[in-house]
Amino acid sequence: MTGPTNPQALAHKVAAAVGTFEQWSCLRPADRAPALEAIASALEKAAPKLVALADEETSLGQARLHSEMVRTVFQLRLFAKVVTRGEYLGATTDNADPSWPMGPRPDLRRVLEPLGPVVVFAASNFPFAFSVAGGDTASALAAGCSVIVKAHSGHPRLSAATAEVVHNALRSAGAPEGLFDIIFGTEAGRDAIVDPRVKAGAFTGSIEAGRALFDLATGRPEPIPFFGELGSVNPVFVTKAAAERRGPAIASEFVGSFTLGAGQFCTKPGILLVPASAELVDQLHGAVPDKPLTLLNDRIRTSYASALRELRDTAGVHVVVSGDHAATNPAPTVLRTTSAELLSDPQALIREVFGPAALIVEYAEESELLEVAKVIEGQLTASIQGEDDDAIAAELIRLLAAKAGRVLWNQWPTGVSVTYAQQHGGPYPATTAPATTSVGTEAISRFLRPVAYQNVPQHLLPPALRDANPLGIPQRAS
Amino acid sequence: MTGPTNPQALAHKVAAAVGTFEQWSCLRPADRAPALEAIASALEKAAPKLVALADEETSLGQARLHSEMVRTVFQLRLFAKVVTRGEYLGATTDNADPSWPMGPRPDLRRVLEPLGPVVVFAASNFPFAFSVAGGDTASALAAGCSVIVKAHSGHPRLSAATAEVVHNALRSAGAPEGLFDIIFGTEAGRDAIVDPRVKAGAFTGSIEAGRALFDLATGRPEPIPFFGELGSVNPVFVTKAAAERRGPAIASEFVGSFTLGAGQFCTKPGILLVPASAELVDQLHGAVPDKPLTLLNDRIRTSYASALRELRDTAGVHVVVSGDHAATNPAPTVLRTTSAELLSDPQALIREVFGPAALIVEYAEESELLEVAKVIEGQLTASIQGEDDDAIAAELIRLLAAKAGRVLWNQWPTGVSVTYAQQHGGPYPATTAPATTSVGTEAISRFLRPVAYQNVPQHLLPPALRDANPLGIPQRAS
Repeated sequence: MTGPTNPQALAHKVAAAVGTFEQWSCLRPADRAPALEAIASALEKAAPKLVALADEETSLGQARLHSEMVRTVFQLRLFAKVVTRGEYLGATTDNADPSWPMGPRPDLRRVLEPLGPVVVFAASNFPFAFSVAGGDTASALAAGCSVIVKAHSGHPRLSAATAEVVHNALRSAGAPEGLFDIIFGTEAGRDAIVDPRVKAGAFTGSIEAGRALFDLATGRPEPIPFFGELGSVNPVFVTKAAAERRGPAIASEFVGSFTLGAGQFCTKPGILLVPASAELVDQLHGAVPDKPLTLLNDRIRTSYASALRELRDTAGVHVVVSGDHAATNPAPTVLRTTSAELLSDPQALIREVFGPAALIVEYAEESELLEVAKVIEGQLTASIQGEDDDAIAAELIRLLAAKAGRVLWNQWPTGVSVTYAQQHGGPYPATTAPATTSVGTEAISRFLRPVAYQNVPQHLLPPALRDANPLGIPQRAS
Repeated sequence: MTGPTNPQALAHKVAAAVGTFEQWSCLRPADRAPALEAIASALEKAAPKLVALADEETSLGQARLHSEMVRTVFQLRLFAKVVTRGEYLGATTDNADPSWPMGPRPDLRRVLEPLGPVVVFAASNFPFAFSVAGGDTASALAAGCSVIVKAHSGHPRLSAATAEVVHNALRSAGAPEGLFDIIFGTEAGRDAIVDPRVKAGAFTGSIEAGRALFDLATGRPEPIPFFGELGSVNPVFVTKAAAERRGPAIASEFVGSFTLGAGQFCTKPGILLVPASAELVDQLHGAVPDKPLTLLNDRIRTSYASALRELRDTAGVHVVVSGDHAATNPAPTVLRTTSAELLSDPQALIREVFGPAALIVEYAEESELLEVAKVIEGQLTASIQGEDDDAIAAELIRLLAAKAGRVLWNQWPTGVSVTYAQQHGGPYPATTAPATTSVGTEAISRFLRPVAYQNVPQHLLPPALRDANPLGIPQRAS
């Protein structure tokens, strides 16, 4: 069930995804909602079993896994609402206009249509929300695409079990057979992304793996969009006033955020910039629990140990709290350096360490915060702990908005709400597609492309574009 | 003035584009409108001189060039309206909501922000509308980006003169120095697209050149979006009923469309699928003028001759009208084949020949139209000449919408109106970015990326996201 998918099986699954796409993409968007609802309900029903299985394979704990399941079910239902509402289609009509200033304008109508079969690469750290039935799958199905999920090797049995739940739910909802399928193994994933019948890829994971797949997707004879969410250090900038007024709270909240889920979040705050002060470092020291944390799997344990060792051994880096990174279940580690060191070698010091470690960066003058903001690479998030009257705030926000998909003020980046305005993305290497988000309702637009219809008679137009508006969706006209 | 830009000069121009971006991107969008208006007015004023120069370098003729200038001026003014209106910003607010089903929702606000310096590769065949001050430049400037145009070698003096007009207009409008610049030479263009400070590329031209630049853009250490509009054969499908009722009109309109601008349009209909009938071929024969046409330049003359020769020499292809393709000024050429031949070797027969040539494809059964629709690659446009009660119409439209950015009914693809609903794009090889358009108001979105602000105090939010709505733009809230 969870062994590597062989080329014949893959070819069969892709062929099915192509055939099913024909039917699924032609449905009225609202008619895709029941299938999404069915998956949500089936997951809810299977939750006790799935959560137990997930805990066995990931050690993330029942509480966290249960709330992740709530999130996963919620986003399926939210996409059911999105397709029912139909605003995402961007239906736009230009009526024919003989007096259009550049010359007579024909009747032109534009709507977003699904791309085709999509390959979703599941993540290790969110075995529900960014895995088999997670946000990429939900948004691609909602868009009208068929989906092949490449399971993550970190939770194979959960992946197979979740896929089974999804299959049965889709069947019970009358969705076409082959709309959704799952494959296992690195080779099968690579073969899938270069299959000419596949029209897009979505991925959450490391920079290394994501870049390799991006290169395959863009190097094809027919390049396809590849929506990779890769790496981020999610720096947090603490102003002098904030450190002075809320030092202890900031220290303890920061520790809570960077150790959440054993530090295995894409949005883990990996760097905290603070005014140089023995006091704040002491506060941090006191807030870090000397508690062993269980990492997701051996591969992550190994890379955590080696990434942390490298950072710790970098010139100018000192240990504040040593969590024995080589232990099977390491306690959190806190390192420190100065902004002067960081600015002298940003590449060495601004690096993602996936796991429960963080780097404190002490600065002398607040202007150094601006210098650091200028040298960081693309980020999923950048946060400020500040006071409303901080003189530096406006400029710092402006600089960080140029580098990050989400800018936070006095909140912590872990915890990515699924909403209309959410943006989970950012310039490379945070993602390979900075204009898109993988969380929130806008995630659906990754799997769509616009088509304009010129002078097409009403009865031959897609329903979304007809004057009579049979779908009852928001239409714009000019 | 028009010699190759050397690396030092390029570095200087990119540095200026970066510096200027800081200022230009921070302007309220509406405050960018006067600069766009200034360019439009300056072009209008310089039109007689520029059109004369364009005619010298491209031989496109005063009438065509004048109407292209009207289009160019119009789209600059349309983008001035777009930025003033501000709907393109997609300003969206999620108010904090403690009862949000997946858990308390923070205050999240999302807006589109400019990408950074953009390199625009000008096209040869539209020396105004897709060149120095064309749609890519207008939409990138409107988005808040700085622009470096790589001039096309086909009209260097016009490029320099247009750049001078743009420069002076921007200066008079008080725009920051270095917001717009021009470079010459293939090397400089390649160097520009791999410069780490450049954040996007836009291109209109051949598949070969576009793919090479796309590969450079996606192969960078930090890959960047590359919006290439490459090649298209723009097939036209004529149903039996339409051929029967409107044969002569279709024949003469088709000839008008494929010979317009000497066949040098991205949207030239290169293939006409017609029911097998000596009559229709006769009608076409009669409609083709035996008139020499002047091509843009020697390079296009050479590639036209060789591409046409190759197609003519392909097995199953016959000459209907021979336009002496090797002549300096060739008359139109019409070839013919059958849908059976075409389906047996689509790659050899469905090929863009840039210039005044077309391939007539005769079919026996209308169902063959569906087969051809299934095998064609991505297209900018696909057109149908049909009757409202054609049984095949709905299925044919559905299949063509999966392959083309724009589907036309009883109109011709040449002539791409600049409007709100326009979609000038399509799956590869029509473009390298099927979710985007290079014509129409939506072209601005290519140069934007979303940023979400979480829990940011009102006075520190971008004006577009403040509750008081100081920009007076459409805001969505939930």
